[in-house]
Amino acid sequence: MKKFVNDPKNYVAEMLEGVALANPGALRYVPAYNLIMRSDAPNDNKVSIVQGSGSGHEPAHVMAVGKGMLDAACPGDVFAAPPMDYVYETAKLLSSPKGVLLLVNNYTGDRMAFDMGKEMAEADGVRAEILTVNDDVAVQDSTYTVGRRGVAGNFFVIKAVGAAAEQGAELDEVIRVGKKVNDVTRTMGVALTACTPPAKGSPLFELGADEIEFGVGIHGEPGRERRKLKDADAIVDDLLEAVVTDLPYDRGDRVALMINGLGGTPISELYILFRRAHQRLADRGITVGRSYVNEYCTSLDMAGASLTLVRLDDEIEGLLAAPAEAAVRVF
Amino acid sequence: MKKFVNDPKNYVAEMLEGVALANPGALRYVPAYNLIMRSDAPNDNKVSIVQGSGSGHEPAHVMAVGKGMLDAACPGDVFAAPPMDYVYETAKLLSSPKGVLLLVNNYTGDRMAFDMGKEMAEADGVRAEILTVNDDVAVQDSTYTVGRRGVAGNFFVIKAVGAAAEQGAELDEVIRVGKKVNDVTRTMGVALTACTPPAKGSPLFELGADEIEFGVGIHGEPGRERRKLKDADAIVDDLLEAVVTDLPYDRGDRVALMINGLGGTPISELYILFRRAHQRLADRGITVGRSYVNEYCTSLDMAGASLTLVRLDDEIEGLLAAPAEAAVRVF
Repeated sequence: MKKFVNDPKNYVAEMLEGVALANPGALRYVPAYNLIMRSDAPNDNKVSIVQGSGSGHEPAHVMAVGKGMLDAACPGDVFAAPPMDYVYETAKLLSSPKGVLLLVNNYTGDRMAFDMGKEMAEADGVRAEILTVNDDVAVQDSTYTVGRRGVAGNFFVIKAVGAAAEQGAELDEVIRVGKKVNDVTRTMGVALTACTPPAKGSPLFELGADEIEFGVGIHGEPGRERRKLKDADAIVDDLLEAVVTDLPYDRGDRVALMINGLGGTPISELYILFRRAHQRLADRGITVGRSYVNEYCTSLDMAGASLTLVRLDDEIEGLLAAPAEAAVRVF
Repeated sequence: MKKFVNDPKNYVAEMLEGVALANPGALRYVPAYNLIMRSDAPNDNKVSIVQGSGSGHEPAHVMAVGKGMLDAACPGDVFAAPPMDYVYETAKLLSSPKGVLLLVNNYTGDRMAFDMGKEMAEADGVRAEILTVNDDVAVQDSTYTVGRRGVAGNFFVIKAVGAAAEQGAELDEVIRVGKKVNDVTRTMGVALTACTPPAKGSPLFELGADEIEFGVGIHGEPGRERRKLKDADAIVDDLLEAVVTDLPYDRGDRVALMINGLGGTPISELYILFRRAHQRLADRGITVGRSYVNEYCTSLDMAGASLTLVRLDDEIEGLLAAPAEAAVRVF
């Protein structure tokens, strides 16, 4: 295993220490609960937005904590849901009279941890609701999921509910906005290589030298099928067909287009994919109103990418364009 | 080769099309010269800032074009300097009465292209100056360089001269600022794996399963030595010792600290490296005033990272904190 790692047991904790050290003043790290939170949270006049999930998907979600985004993220270990008591403690720490919204990507382990953590917090008087994200069109049920998986499209839900909460919206309204965005968001991904969890030290699955996993999950779980490697344009065309026809997105629609890197793919390749997707959407009479090309939700060091569409209207576009700050600095 | 690529000959052009499509209104792509420029450049009241280099280092430099950063970037093919006529045409297109500053990372091919392109532009009446960046402490001369190489630290030079130019500084003043930043910036990198240029289709060099290249160049060229793989903290300690003792950075200094990913390393690992570097700097009495953890200057899909320090003073810190926009969107 060729990684920058010390004892794999400390992988998550050391990463979180780094996130906190890189954002003094803005973020606080609470080691007891794997928790990264805004230093100025909770705010009595604002719904608190919280997400947890397994680690290994960075920048999701600990690097999406900041003004106009998440108030806190409580990750589990690599590819493992946070323990229910982390969710419980996080909900208590972030408790606000306006409520706490717990965002959950749809995986069975995460749902269980959040359902139980929420119940425990409610017993302590915390006002909390759960919103589930399930944007992955690849498969209906899968290794770790009943129903569709939540993947990179959840960044749009985070951005929208984060903006609404920052503007003072009540909990019901924040949930309405989040569900609305989730309902018009669709994603599909493809893996060129497997990823290597630090504690395992070897690839999580095997892919032949000329094979790709079409519809891969963000934990390396199977998607629709193994296929032969094609050129970039053909891969985009396949992803786009699956995503566009699912909602479906129609001629005259205006969309946000995200090409998300899965961790091991350089940004140059992501822009090659973006270019084709943009061109093919134009051919279909669909306009790209907002563009996202970067890593948003990764799978450790997996080479691969996912394609996400969000159907825009004035409300969603306004929320996506609202000011936001987060741990990841570009310049 | 498992990459998102079509015909490798079109790799750079397709990426640049993607960059332009993702930034409508803000950026313009001029295919004849591989050129990405701000749509509102040149500006008669502002020094134009231009950089070119080989491609394969993205986001450097085509994704660093934007307000407060570069006015234009003219890349060559992967790991190849831009042709001198691209430099010439770019300098002409960006010509301003206040002058054009051509930033060059110190590689012999790039210097030749820029020296000649500048002369050709001057013959046409363009006022132009060259500023060379050479922040890499790994080796004195190398495969493609007489003198030290320019690597990820050049982002700090871009940010500083971009901010000064945006504030209306004259060419001499912009150059003074750029040289000042270059003089207090030092970098060293390490490779865990080789990178694979699309046109070659196989790794550029061989590294054993337990080997790293300490002091690697951003084209995979050799650094100080092959070493055995160590844990993350030990690698950081070695990089930091090389960088700190070079300027040297001293007790009481305030610095910007950058951990730059080389393309194939996930951001989680970069934060593990950042954490250790931050802690060890504190042990040396050196304060981190600004933090950068992301990909800034990559080497295609190479797994690896570099560590950069910039000694801050009020002037440099103000310029680094100035507003900036660029092609890479986080949220």
